[in-house]
Amino acid sequence: MYNMGASTKPGYDIANKSREIVKSLIDDKTKDLTYEERDIVERVVHSTADPDYASLVKISNDFVDSALKSFNNKEDILTDINMVKSGITRYDGKVSCYIRDELSRKMAKSEDITRSAAAIRVAVEDGFKGVVAIGNAPTALLEVIKMHKANEIDVKAVVGVPVGFVGASESKELLSKTDIPHVITTGPKGGTPIAVAVINSLLNINKN
Amino acid sequence: MYNMGASTKPGYDIANKSREIVKSLIDDKTKDLTYEERDIVERVVHSTADPDYASLVKISNDFVDSALKSFNNKEDILTDINMVKSGITRYDGKVSCYIRDELSRKMAKSEDITRSAAAIRVAVEDGFKGVVAIGNAPTALLEVIKMHKANEIDVKAVVGVPVGFVGASESKELLSKTDIPHVITTGPKGGTPIAVAVINSLLNINKN
Repeated sequence: MYNMGASTKPGYDIANKSREIVKSLIDDKTKDLTYEERDIVERVVHSTADPDYASLVKISNDFVDSALKSFNNKEDILTDINMVKSGITRYDGKVSCYIRDELSRKMAKSEDITRSAAAIRVAVEDGFKGVVAIGNAPTALLEVIKMHKANEIDVKAVVGVPVGFVGASESKELLSKTDIPHVITTGPKGGTPIAVAVINSLLNINKN
Repeated sequence: MYNMGASTKPGYDIANKSREIVKSLIDDKTKDLTYEERDIVERVVHSTADPDYASLVKISNDFVDSALKSFNNKEDILTDINMVKSGITRYDGKVSCYIRDELSRKMAKSEDITRSAAAIRVAVEDGFKGVVAIGNAPTALLEVIKMHKANEIDVKAVVGVPVGFVGASESKELLSKTDIPHVITTGPKGGTPIAVAVINSLLNINKN
């Protein structure tokens, strides 16, 4: 039985029926994946009702192990915007987002960077260590990559699925060329539900 | 200049460039819409990077006026899940979500309904009056429709864009046949970014 945020019998029934339909739609595209990777892809398609994601989601070989280890160690989950944070409700560790932090606002102005990028730096100053989930802002993802290259961030895995026609594809391609364990979606598509689906898939596996 | 959640010069530049690309992709599909309706559709495509939404979003003729009037009167915005609530950060009125309310949990168990449906009933008991935004749960949308037919809910407009392969299409089709001013997406696709985009489009128009 799939736990997809449902907490009642009618809720579970809907979630299970949906997952069976998802499986039937994308089975041929996920057959070479591990159990955990298949769960991630199915959950993304479930949460978007968009089977295209079965072809767009790319998971690095070390992603599942690295992210699960971080979760088991109760390290942090850092998100780019609060919508992603709001979707992660079943984690025992800290889930944080600094986009609306006063420090992020000030740093964005003083450094002439986006508030999304500033929020990553503020998180690091606040002691972040763990998994980053980016569902919206390419500039946040670029900041993570930059800080990783400079050995300034202790990041164990990145769910990098920013959305949009300006900079999103490029930022994801850059991530895929780093040694950071990662999930990306190729092309402009992505978004907060995809970031949430990837994280919740692993958290759910972790509890079963 | 488009305000799409950006608060810095680099953020605005990205948002503006993206909107120009979106316009070029879907211009032929939005040319018969009003200014406000076009802004809604463009913002949905911007937030999903999925031009298909230009064909899927259906806006009733009375939606923009009814929703704007409700916002001007500072009535409530009720969301089905917290991800939608988190995305609506620039409203002066109350933005609420009862999905994690203890009363919703209890009612779901006792009535054998989903927690999403129970959360709508709890909101009404708490005095809800205004616009409903549903980005996830078909059962929440069905509850709104049922209560509207029974004259039990004071709803001025519904953004009904639940996502999924089980019940979502049907619930949206039902909404489109009521007299409630509405936005839907036809078919299984939809989701929290679409609900947020529709609401934020109108809130932004309201401030300009």
